[in-house]
Amino acid sequence: MPHISLPENLPGIIGPMTAYPATTKPLNALAEALLVQDSPTLSKTDREVIASYVSYLNNCVFCSETHGAAANAWAKNPTLAKTVWENPQTSLISNKLQALLKIAGAVQKDARTVSEPMVQEARKLGATDQDIHDTVLIAAAFCMFNRYVDGLATACPPRGFAGYADMGKRLTETGYVRALESQ
Amino acid sequence: MPHISLPENLPGIIGPMTAYPATTKPLNALAEALLVQDSPTLSKTDREVIASYVSYLNNCVFCSETHGAAANAWAKNPTLAKTVWENPQTSLISNKLQALLKIAGAVQKDARTVSEPMVQEARKLGATDQDIHDTVLIAAAFCMFNRYVDGLATACPPRGFAGYADMGKRLTETGYVRALESQ
Repeated sequence: MPHISLPENLPGIIGPMTAYPATTKPLNALAEALLVQDSPTLSKTDREVIASYVSYLNNCVFCSETHGAAANAWAKNPTLAKTVWENPQTSLISNKLQALLKIAGAVQKDARTVSEPMVQEARKLGATDQDIHDTVLIAAAFCMFNRYVDGLATACPPRGFAGYADMGKRLTETGYVRALESQ
Repeated sequence: MPHISLPENLPGIIGPMTAYPATTKPLNALAEALLVQDSPTLSKTDREVIASYVSYLNNCVFCSETHGAAANAWAKNPTLAKTVWENPQTSLISNKLQALLKIAGAVQKDARTVSEPMVQEARKLGATDQDIHDTVLIAAAFCMFNRYVDGLATACPPRGFAGYADMGKRLTETGYVRALESQ
């Protein structure tokens, strides 16, 4: 049971985003700016991998599953996210993204533990200032989105629910600013 | 030294917000929607108290000091925030805000630990659904802002620096959407 009254049948963040529109607009604009960008050095797949990995570390089922499904949809690999959660050093992702996930993991735990050696390792593997900035802010933003979902105890299908794949795919088609219109 | 190249002499979040404008617009719009609202049941002082308390729990000097100073400016009490950090059950704030700070503290630590008894206590003291929603999202958002500041190791004046009081006061005058224009 959610801690506050929310529309029924709208799982995870969709309930509070629908019920409290004043904050939804900037939240979705932030997700769009961070995730729906295909910069030359950090792809949309990479960005969703970071988002789902941090959400997994925060034990947020809804966000890890939906953003994991979005990463899988971009990568056309239905098990990419789960593989990364279980082994963030998997050869399925680039060495650079592996190094960025170390930074993202430090941000999730205690951002003051992001170290210069972590950053230097990512740079050696090709990470730009923008990549490091975006990694830190994606990780930080999902520490917010995860807490928004779980702090209100929103309704949430269990891990592995088949519908998540459709939700993730839809996000890759609509983006975030328009995501709620397709509900 | 910050982990990425940032404009000099712009402390805390002001450096990355100036250097990376694409994400700054939604970040400031979110802060404005959450903090510069004087709803009948949760004042601007209350909102800044929650923001500074969560930032203090995250050991984020820049955010706890600036938002603490904003709370002090709204309350016209230069030591309000420091008193709350040291004793969130202080009689300087309402019993309702004390109960909301318990929820905010749970969101900061692990949002899944926000419990129904915590929520019921806040409700008994007058908290509405909107108050509980806003408390959870302010706490969650500052888990993001704090990580953005500290994950990049931005330059930051030490705790107690006199200039923070001016920065907090300026925020109460300009709001967040216009905050960077006054730098």
